[in-house]
Amino acid sequence: MTNPAPDTITVDADRLWRSLMDLAEIGAYDDERTGLRGVNRLALTDADAAGRRQVIAWMEDAGLAVRVDRMGNIYGRREGTDPTAAPVLTGSHIDSVATAGAFDGCLGVLGGIEVVRTLDERGIVTRRPIEVGVFTEEEGVRFGTDMLGSAVAAGRLTLGYAHGLTDRDGRTLGDELARTGFDGPADVRLDPPYAYVECHIEQGPVLAENGVGIGVVTGVQGISWQEITVHGRAAHAGTTPTRLRADAGLAAAEIIVRLRAMVDSGEYGELRATVGHLTVHPDLTNIVPARAELTVDLRNPDDAAMARAEEDLSAFLRELEDARPGLTLSTRRMAGTAYVPFDETVQKVIAGAADDHGLAHISLLSGAGHDAQEIAALCPTAMIFVRGEHDGISHNPREYSTPEACARGVDVLATTLLRLADQD
Amino acid sequence: MTNPAPDTITVDADRLWRSLMDLAEIGAYDDERTGLRGVNRLALTDADAAGRRQVIAWMEDAGLAVRVDRMGNIYGRREGTDPTAAPVLTGSHIDSVATAGAFDGCLGVLGGIEVVRTLDERGIVTRRPIEVGVFTEEEGVRFGTDMLGSAVAAGRLTLGYAHGLTDRDGRTLGDELARTGFDGPADVRLDPPYAYVECHIEQGPVLAENGVGIGVVTGVQGISWQEITVHGRAAHAGTTPTRLRADAGLAAAEIIVRLRAMVDSGEYGELRATVGHLTVHPDLTNIVPARAELTVDLRNPDDAAMARAEEDLSAFLRELEDARPGLTLSTRRMAGTAYVPFDETVQKVIAGAADDHGLAHISLLSGAGHDAQEIAALCPTAMIFVRGEHDGISHNPREYSTPEACARGVDVLATTLLRLADQD
Repeated sequence: MTNPAPDTITVDADRLWRSLMDLAEIGAYDDERTGLRGVNRLALTDADAAGRRQVIAWMEDAGLAVRVDRMGNIYGRREGTDPTAAPVLTGSHIDSVATAGAFDGCLGVLGGIEVVRTLDERGIVTRRPIEVGVFTEEEGVRFGTDMLGSAVAAGRLTLGYAHGLTDRDGRTLGDELARTGFDGPADVRLDPPYAYVECHIEQGPVLAENGVGIGVVTGVQGISWQEITVHGRAAHAGTTPTRLRADAGLAAAEIIVRLRAMVDSGEYGELRATVGHLTVHPDLTNIVPARAELTVDLRNPDDAAMARAEEDLSAFLRELEDARPGLTLSTRRMAGTAYVPFDETVQKVIAGAADDHGLAHISLLSGAGHDAQEIAALCPTAMIFVRGEHDGISHNPREYSTPEACARGVDVLATTLLRLADQD
Repeated sequence: MTNPAPDTITVDADRLWRSLMDLAEIGAYDDERTGLRGVNRLALTDADAAGRRQVIAWMEDAGLAVRVDRMGNIYGRREGTDPTAAPVLTGSHIDSVATAGAFDGCLGVLGGIEVVRTLDERGIVTRRPIEVGVFTEEEGVRFGTDMLGSAVAAGRLTLGYAHGLTDRDGRTLGDELARTGFDGPADVRLDPPYAYVECHIEQGPVLAENGVGIGVVTGVQGISWQEITVHGRAAHAGTTPTRLRADAGLAAAEIIVRLRAMVDSGEYGELRATVGHLTVHPDLTNIVPARAELTVDLRNPDDAAMARAEEDLSAFLRELEDARPGLTLSTRRMAGTAYVPFDETVQKVIAGAADDHGLAHISLLSGAGHDAQEIAALCPTAMIFVRGEHDGISHNPREYSTPEACARGVDVLATTLLRLADQD
């Protein structure tokens, strides 16, 4: 191993790990399926509010000046020598899905605070301010729109839209902000930072497969979600001749098989296609399904290839309808975001920092959505991915990155932030 | 229309219809999905017991000598001039699924009673006795084994097995027989009748499609039910490269598509294949399914072709496992019955009766199971099918056969029974 370059900084791995484990106790539950301790900290629940208070306490202990905006986004600011310079922003989120682990989002927030503690200990002063952000409702599980806090901060969605969103019990996000005390006074529109760098677990198997611990993220692939409903005709399995059937379940199966063939064809670039949700009705052994419902999740780093995939899928659905009397298919768009490329200069700073720490790294796309894709509209942005165990499983109590892996990712974050904060 | 042949008899269509409608009031409920009045008369519930008492009252009014056996099977006997001659048996069942119509099973039982009433009115005496049977738990919905009463009467299943079966609340069939007062004293093993003829609604679209009202049933096709469980690996839809996936839902879809290809190939005779039950887990839009569960319902009138289909399906499952690392497939046999051919002589008597009534008819296989397939082990057996509306929908409050269709079917039953009962 080479000696680290002079302007690298190394964080306190134990202190980082303790903060991850301490935060994971807030909203913890015993997961019956896995036998593990999981985290359930849906946005703006009491558990999330308790987690936010803990994070603010840690920020204040680290000397950060904390402000909360009207979306409940939290920013902790460490001044630089030039307080008029745009700050370097880092951060992520601490809200979780209902059956989560300790790392998703939290690593970026607690990693940012750990960087500040380390700079303080070393007496390092930067030219630009450094801010650590905590964005509200990144998961989108409670109020139905993901990357919500960062999207409003970046101006893609309005505050009114966000405040009016309701959870399944009919409570609005605006009311829940007030109830938890996180309807802050700060303006929600973020003044463009100098740069944004987010450290996050990979939530996938690519780093492990490549035998490296660090990923330099080149962008977030486009996402297209739609729900397809197939209406056929219920029929008795024993008495209905095959040619008289309108089998909704068969049509759903043909769509799934076709999607895989589209992926394998290579004609749609790096398309990924997933049917994760699938139900048939009436769901009885001896009844031909009258109805099937499935979701199609498409990902693509190439917007043109994505559009082509969507069109060809639509054409296939029309073909199915034409070929099978009695079948009707309808689709509903659930979500769609374009490919977000990250800034190449920031990627180079991250890669250089990893090199100077002697850490092997690769460049890769993000398959999942992140706050960084919203903040990228405001300033040069990129992400650092940290390797996960168990094929990078996430949104599950089995989610796990080693203390070593977390610390090395935050080392790279620290050096990256330091270098960016000293730029003119 | 030609004049009916001299030894045909025509039943009272109104009286038959009234008895069907009266019996349908016992266990009736308002079906929310269809907005129609349905029937819920699961075997040996209070509703079924009330229906049984009504049927016994009608039998006694028609002068039948009623006996109940240890399975709760009910027989009403009309003596012939030769009381030592084996009787001609007709009948069916009055238990229902939870969301039934008025006709399934009931037409055969009430049709049999209507034949006796008509013979009495005409003063017709037959050589052989005629018996009308009501078999217990034909549907198999409550205690899990269909054609149960007739299977025990025919000796395929034992009384001990049947009495020990439990419903989902843990109540045994034996206890429910006692509770409802239908643990009769008669021996359950049926002395072989001279012949058995069962009139039943088709529960399928073939008669309507052929523009005829009467079907002469040539047999009951073999049935094979199995449950397939596919174990794969949960993975994030965005972050997991396609080549690293073990997608249980995709494998399920490939099985469904392959089954249809097998049917269409024509290599398995008149194979019908249905996947009616299909679930994936965790059933989330952005998670590759870790597990899929599906049922495969195969029907075939050719046992050799059925065995070939089952073998080739098994081979395909092994191929899938071999081709896709990380996938494992397991199967569980749920049910399997061989093809039951009906007696050609009895079919000819039925066809001749239909001809003599001037009624168009076709021969067809039964896709569904019936008590007749059990009684066929004891004596020459065949069935008469009556046309249903709405593609022959059954096990649904929309199940419907017109008063005319029901009466014409029971006319054919009456003439068939009369002719068989006068044979030496």
